[in-house]
Amino acid sequence: MISQAMLGFGRSKSCIRELAAYGARRKAEIGADRVFDYSLGNPSVPAPDCVNEAIRELLSLDSCTLHGYTTAAGLPSLRRAIAEDMRKRYAAELDPDKMYIICGAAAGLAICLRALVQPGEEVIAFAPFFPEYRMFTEGVGGVLVTVPPLSDLQPDLDAFEKALTEKTQLVIVNTPNNPSGVVLSAQTLERLARILEAAQARYGHPIYLVSDEPYRELVYDGREVPCMLHFYDNTILDYSYSKSLSLPGERIGYLAVSPKMAEGDTVYAALTGAARACGYVNAPSLMQRVIEKCIGQTADVSIYRRNRDLLYNSLTEMGYDCVYPDGAFYLFVRTPEPDARAFSERAKKHELLLVPSDDFGLGGYVRLAYCVTEEMILRSLPAFKALAQEYGL
Amino acid sequence: MISQAMLGFGRSKSCIRELAAYGARRKAEIGADRVFDYSLGNPSVPAPDCVNEAIRELLSLDSCTLHGYTTAAGLPSLRRAIAEDMRKRYAAELDPDKMYIICGAAAGLAICLRALVQPGEEVIAFAPFFPEYRMFTEGVGGVLVTVPPLSDLQPDLDAFEKALTEKTQLVIVNTPNNPSGVVLSAQTLERLARILEAAQARYGHPIYLVSDEPYRELVYDGREVPCMLHFYDNTILDYSYSKSLSLPGERIGYLAVSPKMAEGDTVYAALTGAARACGYVNAPSLMQRVIEKCIGQTADVSIYRRNRDLLYNSLTEMGYDCVYPDGAFYLFVRTPEPDARAFSERAKKHELLLVPSDDFGLGGYVRLAYCVTEEMILRSLPAFKALAQEYGL
Repeated sequence: MISQAMLGFGRSKSCIRELAAYGARRKAEIGADRVFDYSLGNPSVPAPDCVNEAIRELLSLDSCTLHGYTTAAGLPSLRRAIAEDMRKRYAAELDPDKMYIICGAAAGLAICLRALVQPGEEVIAFAPFFPEYRMFTEGVGGVLVTVPPLSDLQPDLDAFEKALTEKTQLVIVNTPNNPSGVVLSAQTLERLARILEAAQARYGHPIYLVSDEPYRELVYDGREVPCMLHFYDNTILDYSYSKSLSLPGERIGYLAVSPKMAEGDTVYAALTGAARACGYVNAPSLMQRVIEKCIGQTADVSIYRRNRDLLYNSLTEMGYDCVYPDGAFYLFVRTPEPDARAFSERAKKHELLLVPSDDFGLGGYVRLAYCVTEEMILRSLPAFKALAQEYGL
Repeated sequence: MISQAMLGFGRSKSCIRELAAYGARRKAEIGADRVFDYSLGNPSVPAPDCVNEAIRELLSLDSCTLHGYTTAAGLPSLRRAIAEDMRKRYAAELDPDKMYIICGAAAGLAICLRALVQPGEEVIAFAPFFPEYRMFTEGVGGVLVTVPPLSDLQPDLDAFEKALTEKTQLVIVNTPNNPSGVVLSAQTLERLARILEAAQARYGHPIYLVSDEPYRELVYDGREVPCMLHFYDNTILDYSYSKSLSLPGERIGYLAVSPKMAEGDTVYAALTGAARACGYVNAPSLMQRVIEKCIGQTADVSIYRRNRDLLYNSLTEMGYDCVYPDGAFYLFVRTPEPDARAFSERAKKHELLLVPSDDFGLGGYVRLAYCVTEEMILRSLPAFKALAQEYGL
């Protein structure tokens, strides 16, 4: 029989993708410069020069080496280079033998969930969260338990404490956050870790934390993103170069099991098994070598900061209630009517494409991906103004 | 709880990979030129020039386009180009809207199995078969039913007919075959299809056929590989460019649902859902564009033919009983003692690394991957000779 679960995933409509598809049609109708498309988190800043330079250099390598299989976990030299960089930047100790180069952070999540969650077990996510968390959890028969945020969209740790049960197997933390841009402080992560440790002791089994951190380098105003490895031993880092190097289509990142995890060997073996079962053989070989040559570099993220400032300041001045984003490239705006979908529809009449927050596990907001041109933001401001006036802001 | 199945996959030792690892150690000990390593199916012929030329050209593209997300199913222009090529070369009709660009044939198999097989359902493979078929099947709770071959290693279709039950959901066909190099004729595929159609009618449900064909272009002496789409409507093609373009590390290929499949829309939707659940977002974007520019080209496969002739003729002359391979780059040799593992161990004493056939679902053979240098083959012949003499061939 055809899997009804997989069929459901194949047929379910992503509200982000639907809005983007609407945008594409609308641009064809009335011209691209008249549609203000804030739907997709597709980096608008080019990859740093080191990427294409690395590719050019690598073409002189022997073809069978350059395009050949690597070990399943990825090139040992790449894993060592990443570990070295993490030591320098975050004083974090990674063990190259417990790292696995993956095809992007989504692959990493799929692998973690398949390795570590059994049918009926619970996975906790803090709202608002990336919609695919639900799909990856339900895809292995797990149950997604969501914790609503505090009013500033920081995690509600009291609610988190109550959400933990003996069935909790895994918690996903995403900082900087998609869709809100919120960054978690060291203090918050510290308290979160202590709550998890108490729950582990109470229930007598490990609870794994997957730190989904593709936006780690996209922070502004000197904000720091503390490394989860310093706080909680049962941590797995899930990283992607999609945003930091503007390579979302190349699908490359890594999983790293904390060297301090008590059952780290077993967990790592289960992750490699799940990667194999999902059909991963190795992450793309050319791109593995590119990453090794570009370690420590990022795209020019200052462009996103300028966009954030322009959009946040303009919208706040018009009367919109915006969550100040310390990182990522999303602005989360409270909708002036409770129904975010209705607000998104009304915004469309002004050619503004804003993603309603419901699929992120929270009502009453829209997400604006500001990985766009500054020019588009400037052109869109009169439309935001007109929309604000309709709502009497 | 950690998944015991995934832990098992992570810990199980691939006998091919183990032999290759032994080879690497041995080469370090006694010198690479004294070890005759026939373990791995890693192409030894460089990618055709068009690959690196395409990469160089593509670097002038806008970075956010070149390295950006593509649609999940892959670039429409690439899917159209593949369909056009398949029409020209195989008179096969593909529908670009029922094609999905994937990260290699292993990903394709994982996706098909996850989409189409429920726990307890049966998957049929013809021995000898690629060992990962078992893992992908058991990874979704399916049961792998294997059909032993005829003495010439062609499929035993009478045994196949008896192996079909009401639980049979999917059949995997692999031609040219890894590990035997055997190619199936149009007549064989025709009969296989009629048996499947009768079984579908008998059991009242579709039985899907996955045609795993990464070696499609690696055939010699003008042999043709008939396209399965001409024989059976419930076919899904699972193709990879790993071997034909010598790009195994880049992980790129495609799934194509037959346009004639009655429930094709549903099956395609389930495949896209399974791809999503496995964490695939899109196949690597740069490499998608490279493939589009290299459509219809292959690496210089005549090198493999020369290797085949040299190895087949030399070993046959020494008294070994070899299966004549019409395609792929493997020679399957009957072991002069029944225990293939024991023979492989004895071959090691002559520094010959030959994979015992047991993991391919069939005892009594070794697999020699002849994607090696001609020079290594020549150097290895005295060792084969000495081994033959030990067995009194």
